[in-house]
Order: sequence, then C-alpha cells, then structure tokens
Amino acid sequence: MDMVEEAARKIETMEVRGASRIARFAAETLMNYALTIRGDFDAKMKKAAERLLNTRPTAVSLFNAINFVMRYEGKTEEEKRESLVRRAKEFIEWVDTAKQKIGEIGARRIKKNSVVMTHCNSSAAIAVIKRAFDEGKIEEVYATESRPRFQGHLTAKELSEYGIKVNLIVDSAVRYFIEDVDYVVVGADTITANGALINKIGTSMIALAAKEARVPFIVAAETYKFSPKTLLGELVVIEERSAEEVAGEEIRSLKNVRIRNPAFDATPRGYIDLIVTEIGAIPPEMAYVIIKERLGYAKIYDEEIVLSPNHFE
Amino acid sequence: MDMVEEAARKIETMEVRGASRIARFAAETLMNYALTIRGDFDAKMKKAAERLLNTRPTAVSLFNAINFVMRYEGKTEEEKRESLVRRAKEFIEWVDTAKQKIGEIGARRIKKNSVVMTHCNSSAAIAVIKRAFDEGKIEEVYATESRPRFQGHLTAKELSEYGIKVNLIVDSAVRYFIEDVDYVVVGADTITANGALINKIGTSMIALAAKEARVPFIVAAETYKFSPKTLLGELVVIEERSAEEVAGEEIRSLKNVRIRNPAFDATPRGYIDLIVTEIGAIPPEMAYVIIKERLGYAKIYDEEIVLSPNHFE
Amino acid sequence: MDMVEEAARKIETMEVRGASRIARFAAETLMNYALTIRGDFDAKMKKAAERLLNTRPTAVSLFNAINFVMRYEGKTEEEKRESLVRRAKEFIEWVDTAKQKIGEIGARRIKKNSVVMTHCNSSAAIAVIKRAFDEGKIEEVYATESRPRFQGHLTAKELSEYGIKVNLIVDSAVRYFIEDVDYVVVGADTITANGALINKIGTSMIALAAKEARVPFIVAAETYKFSPKTLLGELVVIEERSAEEVAGEEIRSLKNVRIRNPAFDATPRGYIDLIVTEIGAIPPEMAYVIIKERLGYAKIYDEEIVLSPNHFE
Amino acid sequence: MDMVEEAARKIETMEVRGASRIARFAAETLMNYALTIRGDFDAKMKKAAERLLNTRPTAVSLFNAINFVMRYEGKTEEEKRESLVRRAKEFIEWVDTAKQKIGEIGARRIKKNSVVMTHCNSSAAIAVIKRAFDEGKIEEVYATESRPRFQGHLTAKELSEYGIKVNLIVDSAVRYFIEDVDYVVVGADTITANGALINKIGTSMIALAAKEARVPFIVAAETYKFSPKTLLGELVVIEERSAEEVAGEEIRSLKNVRIRNPAFDATPRGYIDLIVTEIGAIPPEMAYVIIKERLGYAKIYDEEIVLSPNHFE
Amino acid sequence: MDMVEEAARKIETMEVRGASRIARFAAETLMNYALTIRGDFDAKMKKAAERLLNTRPTAVSLFNAINFVMRYEGKTEEEKRESLVRRAKEFIEWVDTAKQKIGEIGARRIKKNSVVMTHCNSSAAIAVIKRAFDEGKIEEVYATESRPRFQGHLTAKELSEYGIKVNLIVDSAVRYFIEDVDYVVVGADTITANGALINKIGTSMIALAAKEARVPFIVAAETYKFSPKTLLGELVVIEERSAEEVAGEEIRSLKNVRIRNPAFDATPRGYIDLIVTEIGAIPPEMAYVIIKERLGYAKIYDEEIVLSPNHFE
Amino acid sequence: MDMVEEAARKIETMEVRGASRIARFAAETLMNYALTIRGDFDAKMKKAAERLLNTRPTAVSLFNAINFVMRYEGKTEEEKRESLVRRAKEFIEWVDTAKQKIGEIGARRIKKNSVVMTHCNSSAAIAVIKRAFDEGKIEEVYATESRPRFQGHLTAKELSEYGIKVNLIVDSAVRYFIEDVDYVVVGADTITANGALINKIGTSMIALAAKEARVPFIVAAETYKFSPKTLLGELVVIEERSAEEVAGEEIRSLKNVRIRNPAFDATPRGYIDLIVTEIGAIPPEMAYVIIKERLGYAKIYDEEIVLSPNHFE
Repeated sequence: MDMVEEAARKIETMEVRGASRIARFAAETLMNYALTIRGDFDAKMKKAAERLLNTRPTAVSLFNAINFVMRYEGKTEEEKRESLVRRAKEFIEWVDTAKQKIGEIGARRIKKNSVVMTHCNSSAAIAVIKRAFDEGKIEEVYATESRPRFQGHLTAKELSEYGIKVNLIVDSAVRYFIEDVDYVVVGADTITANGALINKIGTSMIALAAKEARVPFIVAAETYKFSPKTLLGELVVIEERSAEEVAGEEIRSLKNVRIRNPAFDATPRGYIDLIVTEIGAIPPEMAYVIIKERLGYAKIYDEEIVLSPNHFE
Repeated sequence: MDMVEEAARKIETMEVRGASRIARFAAETLMNYALTIRGDFDAKMKKAAERLLNTRPTAVSLFNAINFVMRYEGKTEEEKRESLVRRAKEFIEWVDTAKQKIGEIGARRIKKNSVVMTHCNSSAAIAVIKRAFDEGKIEEVYATESRPRFQGHLTAKELSEYGIKVNLIVDSAVRYFIEDVDYVVVGADTITANGALINKIGTSMIALAAKEARVPFIVAAETYKFSPKTLLGELVVIEERSAEEVAGEEIRSLKNVRIRNPAFDATPRGYIDLIVTEIGAIPPEMAYVIIKERLGYAKIYDEEIVLSPNHFE
Repeated sequence: MDMVEEAARKIETMEVRGASRIARFAAETLMNYALTIRGDFDAKMKKAAERLLNTRPTAVSLFNAINFVMRYEGKTEEEKRESLVRRAKEFIEWVDTAKQKIGEIGARRIKKNSVVMTHCNSSAAIAVIKRAFDEGKIEEVYATESRPRFQGHLTAKELSEYGIKVNLIVDSAVRYFIEDVDYVVVGADTITANGALINKIGTSMIALAAKEARVPFIVAAETYKFSPKTLLGELVVIEERSAEEVAGEEIRSLKNVRIRNPAFDATPRGYIDLIVTEIGAIPPEMAYVIIKERLGYAKIYDEEIVLSPNHFE
Repeated sequence: MDMVEEAARKIETMEVRGASRIARFAAETLMNYALTIRGDFDAKMKKAAERLLNTRPTAVSLFNAINFVMRYEGKTEEEKRESLVRRAKEFIEWVDTAKQKIGEIGARRIKKNSVVMTHCNSSAAIAVIKRAFDEGKIEEVYATESRPRFQGHLTAKELSEYGIKVNLIVDSAVRYFIEDVDYVVVGADTITANGALINKIGTSMIALAAKEARVPFIVAAETYKFSPKTLLGELVVIEERSAEEVAGEEIRSLKNVRIRNPAFDATPRGYIDLIVTEIGAIPPEMAYVIIKERLGYAKIYDEEIVLSPNHFE
Repeated sequence: MDMVEEAARKIETMEVRGASRIARFAAETLMNYALTIRGDFDAKMKKAAERLLNTRPTAVSLFNAINFVMRYEGKTEEEKRESLVRRAKEFIEWVDTAKQKIGEIGARRIKKNSVVMTHCNSSAAIAVIKRAFDEGKIEEVYATESRPRFQGHLTAKELSEYGIKVNLIVDSAVRYFIEDVDYVVVGADTITANGALINKIGTSMIALAAKEARVPFIVAAETYKFSPKTLLGELVVIEERSAEEVAGEEIRSLKNVRIRNPAFDATPRGYIDLIVTEIGAIPPEMAYVIIKERLGYAKIYDEEIVLSPNHFE
Repeated sequence: MDMVEEAARKIETMEVRGASRIARFAAETLMNYALTIRGDFDAKMKKAAERLLNTRPTAVSLFNAINFVMRYEGKTEEEKRESLVRRAKEFIEWVDTAKQKIGEIGARRIKKNSVVMTHCNSSAAIAVIKRAFDEGKIEEVYATESRPRFQGHLTAKELSEYGIKVNLIVDSAVRYFIEDVDYVVVGADTITANGALINKIGTSMIALAAKEARVPFIVAAETYKFSPKTLLGELVVIEERSAEEVAGEEIRSLKNVRIRNPAFDATPRGYIDLIVTEIGAIPPEMAYVIIKERLGYAKIYDEEIVLSPNHFE
C-alpha cells in the first residue's frame, strides 16, 4: 500500500492537480498497484480504491476513473489483474485523447470571423478555441479575469502566446460585451444527471447573459466529467474556499464582515446550447444516457443501485 | 474669474469628487461668483458656467446643477443676481436633503427580516440600507467587491461600522447568492429619458439575475441624476478607464492582450422595479416627467430645444 | 361628532362596505358634519377626518376620499364650508359616474366574439363585461370561484342573471383554460405609484398565466384606487384574514398546521396591458401621473411632502 | 373469469383506488388467475387482461402493469404460466419498493433548512418530504388545499402527524408564498413521451410560478407512470369530473352557468427541473428512454408498433 | 364648401396620400377655407372639419390635424379666424420640421459602425438612418422587402441612391440576420395611449426577434401619430386590404382558399426601447403624457370627455 | 457505373428532387448496381456511393440512405450483395411507410375543432393535417405564402383540393394570426444532434411567435432527416440561393443593394414541443438517441468515429 499511500498524498497535497490529471494518475496508480500485489486481490484493490477515492471525495473525474478501472472481471487472480490493467490503460487512453477530439468537434461549430468569450482557464475550452484559430475562424477572444484567483490571466497568456488576440475584462463586464460575442465556450467541473453544468463561479451568470442576447453557450467537457452519483439525487457539493483568496487582512478582520467564497455555481440545462464531448456534440439532456452508456451504469435499474455513497463498504 | 478657475481646477484634479459634491460645489461657486461681479452679468455668468461645465462634460449632476442655477430671471442686474443666488441656494438645499429623504422613502419599501444586496459604493443606496437597519428590518447585506476598484470594500467597512452584518462576495457570485436575497438596492450614475440606469459596471448583470429570480431591483437616485440630454437622443458616454486598474504590468504588456475597462453599463427599464428619489418612489418610465417637471425642461417642445449640445454658444 | 362617530362605526362593523361605497360614505359624512358645526372649523373637521380615516387605515379609497374633501380652501368659516361641500359633492359625483365610464371605455377594447376571464367579484370589471355584452361582443365568460370566500359565485350569479354564459372554474384551473380566453378583466384594490396592482389573492397568478399565453390582462379601476402613499415608499399592507375562511375546525386544530390566508397579492406592471379608469385607458406606468394630477398631489416636490404617515397630526 | 370479473368490479367501484394500488392489484389478479386456469392459456389471459384494462382505460399505471405481466414467454403452457407469474411478482416488487427509493433519492436533492411546497396528496412527493425531514433538512412545508376535493387537507394532516410544520394555503396563494419556498415537490399522474407532466389541476400554475421565481420544480414519479401510448401521439385524456365537486345546487342550477372541472393539467418539460424515479433522478426529456428501456418498448421501431389502441384485438 | 369638397376628394382618391401629407393638407384646407367664409363661422368650420375627417376616419394624423386647428378661440369672427389661421400655420410648421428633428435626435442614438434593420418604407425611420449615415455611423442596412406591396424596394432604392449599402431580404429572414444587426429602426402608423405601436404588418415579429436577441428596437414617430381616441379605449381598426395584393387569380379562385391581408399589426410597449419624436426620445409608456400635453387633451378629466367618437355632432 | 452516373445526373439536374425521393432513389440505384456488378464488390460499391453522395453533399437524407445501404455485411460477394439488397429494400420500405405513420401519430396529437398553421410545403406536415382532417378535427388551416418561392401556394392548393379550408397569409402576418391558431405543424429539412430544426427560412420566427403565445409547435420529420454529422460538431450548411428568387432586375441592379437569400434557418430545441417521427412522437432532445439507435451510429464511441467528413476515403 505504500505506493497507493504515496499517490494519495500527492493528490491531497495538490502535487497532482487538475481534474483530468488526477483521474489519469489514479488509474495509473491502481494499475501499478495491481501489478505488484499477490493474493487477496479483490480486498487489496478495494482498499486501494477507497484510499484514493477519499483524497478528493467530491471530484467526479476521480470517482469515474476509479470506478471504471475497478469494474474489472475474471475468475482467477491473473484474469482479474489482466482485466484491471486493460481497463486502466483504456481509461488513460481516454484521458489522453479526449481533449484533442473535443477541440476538433468543437471547432467545427465555430463559423468564420468569430468572437469567442471564455471564462476561467479550461483546457478543453481552450482546445476548441485554438483549433478554431488554426482553422482561421477566430477574430478575437474575450477572457474574464475570473476572480478571485485570476485564472483568466493564465488564459489570456496562453492564448496570447498562441497568437490569438485577447480582450481581458473584469467578470462583471460580461453583459456589457456579450453583444460583440458570437459564442461562449467554457469548460466543466461536473455535468449532472439532469444536464446542469457545475463550473467555476460566475459561469451561470455568463450563461444567463448569453441567453438574454441569443449567443450560443457551449460547454467543452470530457465524458468523465459527468456525475453518476447525481443520478441518485446527490447534490454536487459546492465548496467554499478560503476568505484569503478574496480580500486582505484589513477587510477580513472587520467585525461584521464575512467573506463568502463559493468555488462553483450551477448553470441549468436550459441555458446550454450543447456540450462538446470527445464522443460528440450533445444536448445537456443527454447526460443520463452518457452516464448509463459511456460510464457503464447501464444496470442502475431495480435492486442493483451500485452508486450508493457507501458502495465500497 | 479666478474664483471660478480655481474651482474648475479642483473638479478637474478630483480634489472635489463624487456626483453630488461636484454639483453642489458648482452651484456654490456660481453663487459666490455672482456676488462678486459687477456689470456685464449675463456674459460673465455664462462664461463661468461654461468653464465649470467643461471640467466634466459627461457628468449629469454637474450639468443639472449649472443649468438649474443659470435659469435665473430678472430685468436689472440686481434682480438677476438675487434670482441666481436664490436658485443656487435652492439647489444646495436640494442636494443637502435628498439623501435623507431617499433613505426614508426607500426604507419604507423594505420588509422585516430582509436580506439586501448592493453593488459598488453608493451613498444613496447605503442611506436606504442604514435607515431600514435603524428601523430593525435588515438581517444582513450582500456587498459585491466591485472590481476593478474594490469599492465594495468601502461599503462593507461602512456598513460593518454601522453594526450591519455584511457578506462580501466576488462580483461573479451574484447569481449564486441571489436566491437568499430579498431586495437589490443600488445607486445611479445617470438615469436616461427612457428609464435606463447607467451605473457601475456589473449593475446590469445583477439586475438580470434579480429579474430571473423575481427579486425586486431598486435604484436610489437623486433627481439631479436624471439626464435631460438623453431626451434629445444623446447616448450616455461610457468611459473606458485605465488598464492599470484591472491588471499588472506582466499581463498588460502581453503582446496580443488588450484590457477593456468600461466604467459603467446600462440596465434597461424592464429590469427596474422602482427608482427611489427624494420626491417619491417612481417607476423608471417616469424619467421623462421628472426631467420635464423637476429639472425645468417643461418647454422642450417646438422651436425652443434648449438642451442642444451647444446651448451655451 | 355623534354623526361622525356613528358613521365610523358603520364602516368598522362593515355595515357600509366595498371600496367605493366607503369612500362615498366618508365624503358624505364629512359634508354633512361640516354643515352642522359652527366655530373651530379646521380643528373639528380634522378630528372628524382622523376618526374616519382610522376605521380602515389601509383602505386607499377612503384615504383618497378624505384627503380630497379636506383640501378645502377659504378664509372665513363660511368660505371653508362652502369649499368643503363643493369638494365633497365633486367626489360623490366622481364615485357615482366612474363605473359607467369605465364600462364604456373598457368595452371599446373588447372585440367581437370574445371570451373574457374574470376573478373575484369586481363591480368595475363586471361593468366592462356587461357593457361589452350589451354591444354584442361577449361569447362567454370564465369566472374563478375565488377561494376562500367564493366571491366568484356572486360574479357567476350576476352575469348569469344578465344573460351572459358563465363557466365557473376552480382558481387553479386558470392556466388550463387561458388558451380559450381572449381577455382577462379584473378589478383593483389598490394601484401603487410604480404601477403594481394590489388585488384579490390569485390575481397575480392569472396575470402570469395570461402573460405566458399572450392574453391581454386588463384592470378596471377608478382613479381613487391609486395610492398616493406608495409614492412615499409605503408598502401596501396585505392583511392576513381569518383561518376560518379557509378550513374547518378539524384542520385548524391540527398541531403542526397553520393556515396562511393573505387577502391580496401584487401584480407587477410588466404583466398589465392597460388600466381602464374613468378618465381613460392608460398603461400602469402612468400611476404616478394620475396620483399627481388626478388626486391633487402636484406639489409633492421639495419641502412639502404632504403625504407623510402622520400628516394629520 | 369470476375472479377477474370481481377484481375488475373492485376497480370500477373504486373499492381499489390509487394509481399504484390499482396497478399492483391488476398484476396480482392476473397472476392468481394464471395459476387457476388450465388450457387455452393465451386466449384466456388475453381476455382477462382486456377486462381489467377496460376498467380504467386512461390509467397509465394499470396499462403498464398489465402490459408488463402479459409480456410473458414460453412454449408450453407451464412455461408461460411460470413466466407470467415471475413477471407479476417482479411488477409487484417494483411497486412495493419504488416509493422508498424515490424518497431516498429525492431527499438527497434537498438542502438543510429547506422550505418545500407541495400540491394535492401525492404519496411519492410525501415520501421525499418525510425522508428529508428524517434527515433534519425540512424547516416547514407549504401545502395547497387543492380544490375542488381538498386533498391538501390529507397532506397537511399526514405531515402534521409526522411532526412536520405545515402551512395550509388556498391554491391561488402560491405565487404569493413562492418566494419563501426552496423547492416544489409534486407527484405525477402521467409522464408523456415528450416529458410533459400530467398531474392534478393547478400543478402547471405552480410550475409556472416556480419558474418565474427560479425555484426548482421536482416531480416524484414511479417509472410505471410514464405513458408508452403518448409515444404514438396519443393525447392524455383529461377527464372532467362532476360539477358537484365544485359548487352546490344553488350555483349549479343557475341558468347560464356551467361548471368546468378538469381533473388534471399539463406542465411542459421546460418547467421541470428533474423527475425523481425509483431508478434515478432524470430530466423530463428522458421520458422516451424510460419508456423504451424500463417499460420494455425497445422494439417500437419499424413494423411492430405494439402500442396501437387496439393492440389487444 | 367647394374648396373643402375638392380637398376631401383628393384625399379619398389618394391623390394626396401619406400620413403627414394628408394631415398638412387638411390643416391648409381648413385655413384657406376660414379665410374665404364670412358669417356663421363656427357652423361652417365644423361642417368642413367633419367632411375632411370622414375621408379617412381611422387616420390618426388627420384626426390630430383637424382637432388641433379646430381648437381655435376668440369672441368675434375675426378673432376666431385669426386664431384658427395661427393654429393651422403652427400645425403646418410642426409637420414641416418634425422629420428633420427626428433625424437629428434619432441619429444621436446610433453608435459608430452600426448595422441597422428597417421595415417597410417609413420616411421618419429613413431620416434617422440618413442622418446617422451623414455622421459616418452606418455600415450597412438590412431592409425587408415588406410583402405584400414590396415597399422595401422603395427603401432599398432610396438608401442606395443616398450611397448607403443595403441588404434586401425576405420578411421571414429577419430572425436569421438579426444577430448581425445593432439597431432596428421603424416608423409608426399610430401610437396608442398604452404605448403600443401600430405599424406595417410584420413589425411586431421584428420587434419580437429583436427582443429575443437583445437588439434595441427604436420607433421614429412624429407626435401627431399618437392617438387620443385610444385613451378612451378605442381599438385601432386594422384594415384588411385587397386579396389581389397577395396572390394571383389562380390562387384566389381556389374553392376553399381565403386570402387574409391585414395591413398592420400591434407591437406591445415591452418590446420598444424608445420612441424618437420631434420633441425628444421617450419611452412608449409616455404616450399618455404626449397625448395630454402635446396634443392638447389636458382636460380629459371629469365630465368633459371631448374625444368621444361623436364629438363633432 | 453508367447506371450510377445516370442516376447521379438525375439528382444533379433536379430531375429527381425532394429529400425523401432522392434518398429512396439513391438506395434503389445502389441496389440495382449491386445486382449488376461482378467482382471487386467493395471497391465498386464504394465508388458508386461516393458518386451519389457528391451530387448533394449537404442533403442529410441522401447521406443517411447511402450509409444505411452501405453498412452491408457478409464474407463472400454473394453474401454482401444479398445483405446490401436487403438493406436497400429495408430503406425503401422505410421511406414508403414513414409518411403515413407520421400522419397517424401526428393526427392523434390534434384535438377536435383545431386550427393549424403550417409553413412552406412539407409533405410530412401535410400528412398530419390531412389525417387529422379525415378524423374530423380540422376547422381551418393557416398557410404562409413562404417567400421567396411561394411554396405556400402549393400547400393551399393541395389542402383546398382535399376539402380543407385554408387561409393564405403573407409570412410577416404570422404573429398577427397566431392567437387564432391551436397548433403549428411544420416539416424538417434536417434535425441536428442537439435537437435544433433546420427548415425553410422563416420557420424559426414562427416557432418564436408560437412560443410567445403558448401555441404548441410540432415538427413532422422522418428519422432519416436526423443528421449524424452534427454529432461531430458539423454545422448544417445553410445555402444562400439565387437573388433572382427575391427581386427583379431593376432592384438587383441597384448599385448599393445586395440580395441576401438564405434557404433555411435554425429553430432551437427549446421552441419545439415535439417531433413526430414514424417511430413515435419524441422531444427534440432525443435526436442523439435517434441518431445512435435508429441510424446505426451506436459505436460512435472511442476510436471508431465513423462519421468523419472523409469516411469514404
């Protein structure tokens, strides 16, 4: 378990971070661990899976990675190991190719001479923008600064270095500029079973402003961002992050002042034109089908509800 | 003219700042100047008015102050001076009492146990909140930080010192928290003839989110914030402020990055429940009536369009 | 004061009831009282006015009646009496003719072969429907039963006796039938300064359903239903009536059950196509103008805010 | 057939009532009948099925129960009987466990300190509320009285006895109180193939008011409430019930008055946040997938349209 | 009366046509007639006014012209004549200067590099576009062909000759192109008392599409297009024009086919951003104020309803 | 290849036209060609398929026909031929029966005494209307003329001959008449993966007006109108047709005038109540499921993206 414990700590200390990277890393860890153990395969793997899952219990990509790998089959230990390794490799391949496919599919949606707005710093959304730029379709981009952590600066820098003209704006200027925008393209933290998008705080306001101005709102999301647990009614937990991200000591120490700093908000399906995944551009209502077919929860029916919060116990 | 010139410079250098203060100061200056001059009254006063008007040609309060004072009457110089002084005092009285009346009227709209959201740092909006708090109606306040200049910090501090519980949030978290809010109360930079609100960037997004959640959106505005020029079709010029307010040198110097920093945005009348002025709580559509009756543009009809951009020439 | 006291009791015991009847009765009482007193005219009349006003402090028609009559002028007692009597007669005439004019004006808005929906039991709304029926334009009427007091039964009966075909429905069936309806016509308890309609509980849901289906929503309201106090920010107090109106003893006595029984709700101006008054068909945004010009609050400006809650003290 | 005839009469006389109970009872009856007959199995069962189906031809749960059981397979009579019995038991199990699962899944959607509104008297919706209450999440409930039959009284009583605080309101007060509500949870009579909810009259008005105020509207529905026939375009027949439910003889006998008393109305999918079924929380657009996969109409394609209205003939 | 009769015929035969031209011509005719008659002034003028009014009883401009001129005053015949002539000249001046002022005011609303859409062939709307073009603000124009009479061809021609780039499109392509448009500018046939715009068939669909895409919808209208009669509830009569405008004999003669050809439709005030009149840019809700103050119906109150359909009898 | 070449030319010259007819003809051609060739089966068939596909590269029905037929299986040439012939016959049968089934299913959605609006000249939509008429449900139809090519005349003629009363209107009169309409029923050129409808220019404006008035908007579409390529992000190319369709030489030759004549527009899924296909009435969000299950793209996942634009190369 040392190998697993070490990996778990890397996730906990954020040495390994980012939804896709964490997921890939967990799959890799399970694979490597499976190759080292001998005897008591099921119990050992289950324990390893639990340890990894607990590092970030609300991270949907991690959940999907571990569940995908752990759905191995086989009668003998060797068969099981082989099955697990095959599944882990499949998942790693999935992660490694998804972004490029999303870029290709998403870019096809963009017309010539387009102005695109994006929020925060989503590698999937950026993949779409870059690919569309490669195809000569991007005129300029609006990037929100994305308070409180200014991830919009990263986006501006990355696109700028790629040669794309970027307008950097404060988050509250979105409605002011949206009339000059042809598409909004954002990433996803999580997609729920009823098609809602959980993403960086502010995303739902952009979606609302886009809806008001009839600007298509496009989400770029790998299918491992879809949350099986929400099918069972689980609400996505929206973490409140540190007050220090928002204001300095002088403000934080004021007697009657409390900083509220939710990391994400929820955008309802009605504001989303389509979700570009690595397996196609779909409407958000298809989340349930993706969860069932793509993530392997085909047998959610009847007695076998495999997704209960305690399903590893 | 030295007195006038000195006053003009104080406005230009922002030694005197804030819509109400500038307006009051200009009225005072015109009054004092009128008391010192002898002979050629009309020409001298006109020149003084023009000088002051040019310090901030887009500031509607200044425009209204000067036009109000300059509508003096009389046949002899003495009569004119007396008329002008009377009008100047009337305007100063207007400024000095407006905020308190707005506080009283606005607070009556607030029910017990209310949660109020506000944006930026409007003294009129704060007057409403404080008064409602005095009447025991305020549970807590949500204040946006109001990027790029963080005026929300001033609001949080001021309310906190008054004993009011404040939640400070980033601007993009408005839609996340709006469901917990009973009223939005904001100030105004300008109200246009067709009832639009020009105010701090981000205001229109809050209004949109409030509309979506059926939360009443209330504007606190002295009637000298209503713009007569917009009656003639003039668009309110929305200034773009310095890039330095938004991002540091590292970002600003990126090759393809441009900072866009509009100071205000426009909220359409359909999103505004009512405007609390010192003369009553009115719907935004009444802007035209206010401009005509309160600001003295009753004779806009026919040949005499006194508001043309060159009306002092 | 016996005469006044007796009248006040008739209002309090609901021997005299209905917005228009109360208002007319108060004007009549003040007139008759003025004709009997000698000496100390202002003080006596003020006391009488206060007594009457306190019978139903939230009834806007009563407020308007008393304020209209009490705005008498004159130097001698005789001049004052004459002025008061003239004003009282004018108000009584106003009440007596308003309904018919509303019927005439409102009926002009109705096209041939129309189906009209109405709510509760408004004599002004019924005046419009009957007049339109006289002009051969009404095919049938939908009347809601108007829980909890079933005033819709009165409406059904009254229209039925007039020869008009009526469909009586439960309140919650409005959205089901609205597609078959050409106009909604309702009465008003109060119109606020920003154009909201305060009327029988359920009115705002009908307005919402009408808006959703693009069915014109018309309010029939005498101008003395417009509330001057709301101009000063006063919220219309929405009374909660007795639980006994809603459910029997068996339910009311349940341990954890509370009956909530608000008498009115508020319909925002955006859902109202027009308000038919005795002086014309106007958009709800004109409420402020009506209050100023029709109800005599033209000088609300500046120092003289005559409508303060304590303005009789 | 005596056994079947007797069961049919119990349904017709409403001795057995309630969507779930009828469905379960029909499955049970078919099972018991299958165990008694010998020879001519298919014809006899078909006749029994038809008899039961005709008791309530518009009840979707009954339709689904009978079709589920009748899709038995086998070559010999014994095989068929065994298959039928197995399917009947499966359906009964389905009914018996669905409500609890819906309660579990639905309760996960409810946050702490929530106020929930419900309509009519749905056992599935109540299961969600009770479970959320058990988890300490319910502050209070708003229950509509649900005219004309006042089923809201049953809801109030049931929740009250469970220890939950209930506000009982008239149906038309929904928009007045919706701002104080965090979730609306209602049951379902039928879900159509395009995601519409057919439910107790008034449901669609609540959904509309919830949408206007951005309050999530949740439907609790067993999957046997989904209607396969609507996939073939069949409109759900909305029965008009007896006038006596709505008004007394005095009103009913009025010459020009007709009582209209539709039992249900239709809520479009755009107003529904999610449907909580026993197999997961899904968006209403998934109705088609449920019908196909859960209810066994996978082969609706091409020539074999098994759902035609006459498919038993 | 020969002079009046001749003029009336010119209007009836459409030798004189166009809302503004007819109104101006009627004022001129009344003036010239007044200068020729001697004795019995009131009766003769009334007869002349009636004759002219009957030529086009639904034309609001004609109604306003005649009522404006006929509101002459004076005791002697000479005083009356002088008053009438003064008023007639005033009206003519009004007509002659309105378009230019509308052009000036409207053009101020247009920003640089704008794309404007217009419908039908309104000289007021075109005045705005041309003036904005003179000021270097127009990039291109979208003109709808405006079936059935293709008045869009006239617009395209006129703008083309002025040097403006025009895209001519079929009416049903408006929603396709609206995203490329910055402003819609249309004219007006009539503005009603509650702020609705009656204009060329199709106008309301453009307004709807503009609203959906957050494109400002601007109406250019002289104040004599506001209809006093609508204040009394009169519906604007929407004429159905000849079937021959729509289809040829082959289609018209089909047995079951009827051509419906309404000339106008109604756009509700909620879809109109502002109305540019010669006296300022106002919100549509101000229609009532315009009718009262600009058109002289200040005394609509109380007994004197001067606008009744038979007010000349 | 002569046979194939000849067929391709018939499509190119529009001797064979109409989405369904072209698709059927291509299937037939492939079948007949397969029966004539000997040796090198795969290569020859692929070449034939490519030739046919290139005749109308944006026609989705043609694409679906060819892909359906070409998904033949088998090891020997004979097996392949048999498989191909079987698939071709299946597709032809599909085309031949779809319209009738759509008529049956769609007609069930129509209630008694209905007024239906339709646009352009869709045989599927007309099938629904005729069938509903046969069932005695149609009162009258509104048909738009459908500029620029007046296909509405064909619709009017066809329905008229069938005995149905038709109102023919210009396209811009849709919002004027929509209140008199119970259902809109239109056809489809293409349905995209995210549920948008691509259809005759003007369709989306009708959908918008129907939404505004709460009139159900129904699409009649064979499942071979669903576009697999859009799943990969491909935008449906909206062709601009000849300027000559819109205006005569006189207008076309104007210096600054350009005719814009797009053939189609896009209606978002939120405006569509349901799509009636030959396999059932589904919500538009189901497009993805239809594409996967009905059109055979079940394995779009992972490496095998069969739909790439170059998938025949």
